[in-house]
Amino acid sequence: MKNIILLLFPLFLFAQTKQSTEEQFRSIPSAKNLRDYMEHLSARPHHLGSAYDKENAEWLLGKFQEWGWDAHIENFYVLFPTPKERLVELTSPKKFALKLQEPIQPSDPTSKQLKEQLPTYNAYSIDGDVTAPLVYVNYGTPADYEQLDRLGISVKGCIVIARYGASWRGIKPKVAAEHGAVGCIIYSDPKDDGYVEGDVFPKGPMRNSDGVQRGSVMDMPIHPGDPLTPGIGATKNAKRLAMDKVDVFTKIPVLPISYGDAQPLLSELNGPIAPDAWRGGLPITYHIGPGDAKVHLKLVFNWNTVTLYDVIATMTGSDFPDEWIVRGNHHDAWVNGAEDPIAGLVSELEEARAFGELKKQGWKPKRTLVYCAWDGEEQGLLGSTEWVETHAEELKQKAVIYLNTDGNGRGYLHVSGSHSLESFMNSVAKDISDPETHLTVWKRLRAKRILDAASPKDRDEIRNRSDLKIGALGSGSDYTAFVDYLGIASFNMGYGGEDDGGIYHSIYDDFYWFTHFSDTDFVYGRALAQTAGTTVLRLADTELLPFSFTNLSETVKKYIEEIQTLVKNKQDEVKELNAKIDDGIYTATIDPKVKFIPPAKKEILPYINFAPLLNASDKLAQSADGYAKARTSFQSTDKQLVKSVNQKLIQTERSLIDENGLPNRPWFKHQLYAPGFYTGYGVKTIPAVREAIEQDQWKLAEEKIVSVAKVIENTAAVIDAAAAELEKSK
Amino acid sequence: MKNIILLLFPLFLFAQTKQSTEEQFRSIPSAKNLRDYMEHLSARPHHLGSAYDKENAEWLLGKFQEWGWDAHIENFYVLFPTPKERLVELTSPKKFALKLQEPIQPSDPTSKQLKEQLPTYNAYSIDGDVTAPLVYVNYGTPADYEQLDRLGISVKGCIVIARYGASWRGIKPKVAAEHGAVGCIIYSDPKDDGYVEGDVFPKGPMRNSDGVQRGSVMDMPIHPGDPLTPGIGATKNAKRLAMDKVDVFTKIPVLPISYGDAQPLLSELNGPIAPDAWRGGLPITYHIGPGDAKVHLKLVFNWNTVTLYDVIATMTGSDFPDEWIVRGNHHDAWVNGAEDPIAGLVSELEEARAFGELKKQGWKPKRTLVYCAWDGEEQGLLGSTEWVETHAEELKQKAVIYLNTDGNGRGYLHVSGSHSLESFMNSVAKDISDPETHLTVWKRLRAKRILDAASPKDRDEIRNRSDLKIGALGSGSDYTAFVDYLGIASFNMGYGGEDDGGIYHSIYDDFYWFTHFSDTDFVYGRALAQTAGTTVLRLADTELLPFSFTNLSETVKKYIEEIQTLVKNKQDEVKELNAKIDDGIYTATIDPKVKFIPPAKKEILPYINFAPLLNASDKLAQSADGYAKARTSFQSTDKQLVKSVNQKLIQTERSLIDENGLPNRPWFKHQLYAPGFYTGYGVKTIPAVREAIEQDQWKLAEEKIVSVAKVIENTAAVIDAAAAELEKSK
Repeated sequence: MKNIILLLFPLFLFAQTKQSTEEQFRSIPSAKNLRDYMEHLSARPHHLGSAYDKENAEWLLGKFQEWGWDAHIENFYVLFPTPKERLVELTSPKKFALKLQEPIQPSDPTSKQLKEQLPTYNAYSIDGDVTAPLVYVNYGTPADYEQLDRLGISVKGCIVIARYGASWRGIKPKVAAEHGAVGCIIYSDPKDDGYVEGDVFPKGPMRNSDGVQRGSVMDMPIHPGDPLTPGIGATKNAKRLAMDKVDVFTKIPVLPISYGDAQPLLSELNGPIAPDAWRGGLPITYHIGPGDAKVHLKLVFNWNTVTLYDVIATMTGSDFPDEWIVRGNHHDAWVNGAEDPIAGLVSELEEARAFGELKKQGWKPKRTLVYCAWDGEEQGLLGSTEWVETHAEELKQKAVIYLNTDGNGRGYLHVSGSHSLESFMNSVAKDISDPETHLTVWKRLRAKRILDAASPKDRDEIRNRSDLKIGALGSGSDYTAFVDYLGIASFNMGYGGEDDGGIYHSIYDDFYWFTHFSDTDFVYGRALAQTAGTTVLRLADTELLPFSFTNLSETVKKYIEEIQTLVKNKQDEVKELNAKIDDGIYTATIDPKVKFIPPAKKEILPYINFAPLLNASDKLAQSADGYAKARTSFQSTDKQLVKSVNQKLIQTERSLIDENGLPNRPWFKHQLYAPGFYTGYGVKTIPAVREAIEQDQWKLAEEKIVSVAKVIENTAAVIDAAAAELEKSK
Repeated sequence: MKNIILLLFPLFLFAQTKQSTEEQFRSIPSAKNLRDYMEHLSARPHHLGSAYDKENAEWLLGKFQEWGWDAHIENFYVLFPTPKERLVELTSPKKFALKLQEPIQPSDPTSKQLKEQLPTYNAYSIDGDVTAPLVYVNYGTPADYEQLDRLGISVKGCIVIARYGASWRGIKPKVAAEHGAVGCIIYSDPKDDGYVEGDVFPKGPMRNSDGVQRGSVMDMPIHPGDPLTPGIGATKNAKRLAMDKVDVFTKIPVLPISYGDAQPLLSELNGPIAPDAWRGGLPITYHIGPGDAKVHLKLVFNWNTVTLYDVIATMTGSDFPDEWIVRGNHHDAWVNGAEDPIAGLVSELEEARAFGELKKQGWKPKRTLVYCAWDGEEQGLLGSTEWVETHAEELKQKAVIYLNTDGNGRGYLHVSGSHSLESFMNSVAKDISDPETHLTVWKRLRAKRILDAASPKDRDEIRNRSDLKIGALGSGSDYTAFVDYLGIASFNMGYGGEDDGGIYHSIYDDFYWFTHFSDTDFVYGRALAQTAGTTVLRLADTELLPFSFTNLSETVKKYIEEIQTLVKNKQDEVKELNAKIDDGIYTATIDPKVKFIPPAKKEILPYINFAPLLNASDKLAQSADGYAKARTSFQSTDKQLVKSVNQKLIQTERSLIDENGLPNRPWFKHQLYAPGFYTGYGVKTIPAVREAIEQDQWKLAEEKIVSVAKVIENTAAVIDAAAAELEKSK
């Protein structure tokens, strides 16, 4: 008995010590501080280029320095158009102009800061002055235009009105322009974002009839960042593109409006009644047009270059100073931005203060922490992208991970990111306590997923899997350049799902709204600081980095299966379509009183050779198993060996990059994850192959199967090398 | 070659002759006549008990007689409450009274006949005067109240407001009363029946903000017909129940209102926000209540007995005068009723005129035709039920079939009814030309079903089956007493699906509406006369009745499989529910800011012995095969034999009756089809077993499996007897 006790004692001590630092860390973040920071940072509008944006950057700098961090502001000089003139008017059948203004709410103190508020608009719309018939295009996705084809409606020469939702906003003018539209209006329908969802502001949290969603419409699936400096940092003297060489502006003018402004436009439409799924929540019959309703849309912008303020704070690692744990959240907002982005930023700040506290007490991170507060995220991830492009070479060597947050709310943990750290992220979530139920946030999320499972099969999978799955990263926040451009393992996280909101990118996303309707006592802000901080701390201080590849290889296998199913479904659909046409099903069901253009026959899709991908996936699975075995019994105090293995582990994500990038968008280089070319934010996994198939480019799909297979085999080789090094040391 | 031609010649001649009479028949119905009849019959409000109801009956009598039919009016004396006082007012937080009035539309000439219009109300609501908090209960189905339980909301002592839809209207006050509500308001939500669906009247065909759906709320799943004379004809001297013994009145007062009237009530509700699926199309946030909003509902009725006018016209059969083909459509309406019921009645009239024409030319039906125009359908199938109850003994012996229509529109043929005539109905549909596409209506319907199939499996089944399936009969029109009370093979048919409408049971269901928005040129009215008339003609003149039982046995097999799946699903659901409770899934996902009562554990359901039903189903399949074989090569000129076999065929449907009726509702005797106790119109097949399982009555389910199996075996025996008689004659 005695011996056993003696043997266990040191292990117990070790666990005790490890827990202690983490527990100590998690005890520090304070709800009161989070609230105070938010009140300060959201006190005035602080968009890129504004006075308060700069003031906030300087205030953040001061805080990091006060907490013992080595901090500085890094400036970039970026193109940022702001409105000089905005006009939308109905010119026929009657004439009236839209308000285009979010009104002051007397109970909401910051809503009256009219002078500092950016007007409601979409950044990187081109200038334009068009008058044309109006057509309602639902969400304005490619599928919606297919439906318009069936109804015999062309948007050529028309202004389209699309509702927000289903795809990222920038996709709407892009697809509209591809179909010949000359202008694009985007509105928030109350069914998706308004009274249908809940009581509207200020009675409740939802979007009221005057609320407008601002936002960028830069063609970010091509590349994010400053439009004039793709691939390089927008430093003072960087070589810039001429305006007419820029490929990410919209092709047509585009403006967002409220549903209060949209209703009189939509009410004037005639033509066919919109299909069931197209009908929103306004008290009208939704028609598609075109017809009598003509709209005049005029937009003129100031195309200025403004100074951008990234705040970068560093705490150098004691053992592995050249291994960086990078953490970020943006500080700029469209207006006051209490939820987006400040609710996430304040957690990051409390993490920074907590690490400062630990440092004061003698602790030092083994790896270097780099805490960032980005500017210009809202315009197109400008601050993070320019910083990544500027420091690309150093980041490629040193960055272990990038951990992003962007706002926060009440509810469940959501994490998306690199699957080589999926198990690790599960281990973190198992150590965080949910502030409402006092269960672990992992257990609570698992319960929610079991409750919401789409099928018994899905439910059983959740019950039987030891790790909860994490989503893949698309785009929409500052992780994009890290993961997609450089191949740095990245995460995006936050809490949400229990608080509704309809103030996204409006003047009402402010301290009043947040403290009345969201995480009002900041307990989930505290949970986020604990979650992100524990992630950072554990990654910073664990000797051998906690990468593992079994979940990654499982995930890749699942993606390949999905794509095979996609091919099969497309084949079946075309076969069925052709059979229906041959059998006269469409002509038999035509209603002579309803215009309907039957679809044309399509070519039946060829079978595709998936063998290279399947072989690569098997190879990856073997390598993952090999690494798991090698790691199981690994013990070493040889710092050089650990450093060398870690370097290989860091490179596994880098090896998922293809330097040629994706077809037609070379800036996006990651071969497992990318934002969809026609979804914008929504992720496409194994995008080169999947999108080629979605777009019926069979030859390209087969080519990309070969090149992606090579990339996966390279990754397997890097994993093998890491495993071999571990085995050698045994 | 010569021989073959000679052999074929008589067959060809026979086919030719048969075609000729049918083709001659189908050439007679005239769109102009249909229009003229409709204009006349819908010229004034003609509800049960009104002056114009009687005038119409006399006009119809005259027409039948003019066309050579032996016709008479048969009177019944029925209880029919009409409003003396109607009041709905909000008493808190502010006070105002609802309009409860459908306004005149200047463009619509009959909408101004205020004096003759019945007010908007629900017939057979009890009198009442209640003031209570208001609660929104969605459609007011049992499932909706389960959801209310989860939200911790009781309707006890409250007035509920339910929207029309999902279940028959009479179910809403019934279920509300079961849950302790003291009053019930039913409104038409614009999402189900209003501007969300299309332009509203008079711009379009849909229900406008003042349109109200009148309708009966008699508890018809107990029994239809005069409330005072269940099971017997409401003749002058029939023995009537005392008012306090009636079991089909509502338990609480109930009134229908428009969405214009509903909006101010719903706007005042607070409490939880309604679940997603509960939200309608009004421009408000749907809350459930209860709260400040209190409503005063007062209803007083005149409980009068009125005279009912059924018009019955007979054309006696030459060969089989005691085999009756009964055809009906009601003539009474809630107001002017151009669509409901006149669009169907005018087709029946043209059939009657066409048979009169044929008769003038020397043709006579082999069987007796009985053409009926029912009164008092809208109140609870009064006219047909009282007639069936009065003539029950004669009908049991003589009725081959009852064929019902009730209104008509533009589009696809829909047929529901007895599956022993499914193949026959397919043969009719294959001979009717669609007026729009000039395909057969069978081919067009098949195309539509292929297009709309819910799954590839369903689609393949349609493609591979030689007959299109017909639905089973629930309730909602005059076939009910025929099929459910007496077991007479019955059908309900009509055209529709291409014309939208929102004028059901409102003053706007009139000649103006119909001729602007529905079957404006009456070509589908003509198609209905051709379809129903061909059905009648073919049934009247075919020597051996065209019953066949393969489709019936297939259908019974499918019903049993459905019920077995229902049991399996219920078992799985309870197991899963209990597992979730054991795992703490509900408590883990509670949001402390949202009231939620987790469900309680349930007993796991026992396995049930389906063997008796499965054995009976196999027996039925064998008998069906046997009859099919016996019939294949049958040829006989022995009238007595044919008569004897026909008598057995007629009795097959009768043998599906159990004289004890369904549990707790002995009036409903058919063991394959019945309206659902909690759906009202919607059918429940093998209802005794299915509803017992739905209501967790396991012992009853096992008992009913035995008794229904016996009924099916009896049917098999009748079929065997018919087959044996055919075989004997060979």
